[in-house]
Amino acid sequence: MKIDGIAYRSVWLGDDGWSVHILDQTKLPWSVDILRLTTRDEAAHAIKSMQTRGAPLIGAVAAYGLCLALRADASTEAMERDAGLLNATRPTAVNLAWALDRMLTRLRNTPAADRVATAYAEAASIADEDAAQNEAIGRHGLRLIEAAVRPGRPVNVLTHCNAGWLATVDWGTALAPIYTAFNAGIDIHVWVDETRPRNQGAALTAWELGKHGVPHTVIADNAGGHFMQHGMVDLVIVGADRVSRTGDAANKIGTYLKALAARDNDVPFWVAMPSTTIDWTLTDGVRDIPIEERSAAEVTDMTGRLADGTIATMRVVSADSPAANPAFDVTPARLVTGLITERGRCSASEAGLLGLFPERR
Amino acid sequence: MKIDGIAYRSVWLGDDGWSVHILDQTKLPWSVDILRLTTRDEAAHAIKSMQTRGAPLIGAVAAYGLCLALRADASTEAMERDAGLLNATRPTAVNLAWALDRMLTRLRNTPAADRVATAYAEAASIADEDAAQNEAIGRHGLRLIEAAVRPGRPVNVLTHCNAGWLATVDWGTALAPIYTAFNAGIDIHVWVDETRPRNQGAALTAWELGKHGVPHTVIADNAGGHFMQHGMVDLVIVGADRVSRTGDAANKIGTYLKALAARDNDVPFWVAMPSTTIDWTLTDGVRDIPIEERSAAEVTDMTGRLADGTIATMRVVSADSPAANPAFDVTPARLVTGLITERGRCSASEAGLLGLFPERR
Repeated sequence: MKIDGIAYRSVWLGDDGWSVHILDQTKLPWSVDILRLTTRDEAAHAIKSMQTRGAPLIGAVAAYGLCLALRADASTEAMERDAGLLNATRPTAVNLAWALDRMLTRLRNTPAADRVATAYAEAASIADEDAAQNEAIGRHGLRLIEAAVRPGRPVNVLTHCNAGWLATVDWGTALAPIYTAFNAGIDIHVWVDETRPRNQGAALTAWELGKHGVPHTVIADNAGGHFMQHGMVDLVIVGADRVSRTGDAANKIGTYLKALAARDNDVPFWVAMPSTTIDWTLTDGVRDIPIEERSAAEVTDMTGRLADGTIATMRVVSADSPAANPAFDVTPARLVTGLITERGRCSASEAGLLGLFPERR
Repeated sequence: MKIDGIAYRSVWLGDDGWSVHILDQTKLPWSVDILRLTTRDEAAHAIKSMQTRGAPLIGAVAAYGLCLALRADASTEAMERDAGLLNATRPTAVNLAWALDRMLTRLRNTPAADRVATAYAEAASIADEDAAQNEAIGRHGLRLIEAAVRPGRPVNVLTHCNAGWLATVDWGTALAPIYTAFNAGIDIHVWVDETRPRNQGAALTAWELGKHGVPHTVIADNAGGHFMQHGMVDLVIVGADRVSRTGDAANKIGTYLKALAARDNDVPFWVAMPSTTIDWTLTDGVRDIPIEERSAAEVTDMTGRLADGTIATMRVVSADSPAANPAFDVTPARLVTGLITERGRCSASEAGLLGLFPERR
């Protein structure tokens, strides 16, 4: 997608053909800083510190991180160790493990001397396929937005966190149908949950929608239920970090609350994700998807821009009070109207997913 | 309740016997600033700007505000005008109208020359009765906490916004049972929703619980559903700004989402409020309780403390994005386990409320 008219992906190779470039998402929306990653440790740090984030994107960056690792040491022992190290950077999204497994499957049968070239080719395929899958998600989700069109008013879509092009290689998951509808001329408006504690909605989703020209309004995470009660939300579309075989969806903390409000008000609640986000080994997402506990400082401190333009971090919680910070929650499949994947839409159930992915039977 | 060992109320008269003193709640938790109000306009500004807030407390401050107005002009015409002006400062809480109505009822039959003295006496009664009612709410709510005691673990109570002593004249509504249980030696722990956009949970509830020594943990508003899913919340207690005759409860935006999560996880959800918060004229709270829309700046900007100790305000939303800010939502009675009033507990229904308040039949 575009920033000020220039097309970007969220991860790409430098002119040298090997260094890995990403947008530093901890600096957005205040400045567009490009980070050049040259080592395994820089890639691992970028994922862990959320300079790059979003389930599909961290899969692609981890794949490129393994390329950087192989440039330093292409032995089997180092490769296995470095893949393990990259996989341990974040626990909830399954795309990370998926991408590294795919890389290792390809590379284990490749002679060490050829591994770097093979790895870069495979990482490029992962990135290209992610972009193509999300573009397909946009087409399949477009139908839901078209169905909600009413004369004389915009289609109001609520989203939580950032599942836009910044969370993927391009297009986004939850935002792909929104961009596709906007590009098709549909009158659309997005309610953007600010998504505390890291504010990915207010900082990233609002920014990327704004840069693309999509009308939107930022709201506190507390407000979505009220807007649904009063008929001001036509549908909810969110992304996911891991979806169980049965359709339970782990996504940014607070997603479950919006799913409850959607059900209470008969608002359709859709989860958009590429199939790389599905964990086919899990049948009970609420019980079995590991939930990352992040630093309490993400709750107690916030970063923003002072009146003089300085970017600063300040404490927003009473001085001696502790905080807890689970980063994700799991929305049970019973609350999900359906899933939007690169192969089409389905019910949030094992039967629904196997209908689209029969090879997983 | 106490601050560093010294007993405070949230509104009191100065040594001069007439000026009205409040804690400036926009300065908490960073500094304990006492404001001295001497005119009607200062009182109105304090309520409107939320230097003083909380449904029961703004009723008491408005009553004292009318005392200040009468000192300037005790004529009937001025009195009616000034009461209307004070009543227009905030739209959602019904305690404001209730307190001013009570003052006017008493004062309309009082000769102008006696009105100032009568008004101060009546305002003092309103304040004293509020403190007594909240102490009674604490006793009636204590039973719920006692019933949740399990050996070897604390009772975990989740609350939203600030319904503590800072929101009332003393004790608080939702926090009164918590203080009462803590004072009785019960092992209790409070999950404090930070309560965006104004952060009354992180700034006020965490501060007052901390000053009283009550164990607590601040969480993002998004996190409560996850904790309920995983058995980490024994009950939810919130306050209210207006409760319909049928038990629908308007409270700080986001309360409705927590009520949905409580129901989905069989966690009891209680609303604590004095009877002055009941609007006996309304039967459909979701439809008829007016919801205050506050400034978008409350969402886009946040105030906190920089590392050097300076209190600063910064923008936390992408620069050109608009924001919306409904300040309250309404939790339908069907989601409320029960109400805790000064006369005892009852179901969230007309029958329940009329059982406790038969004079309203």
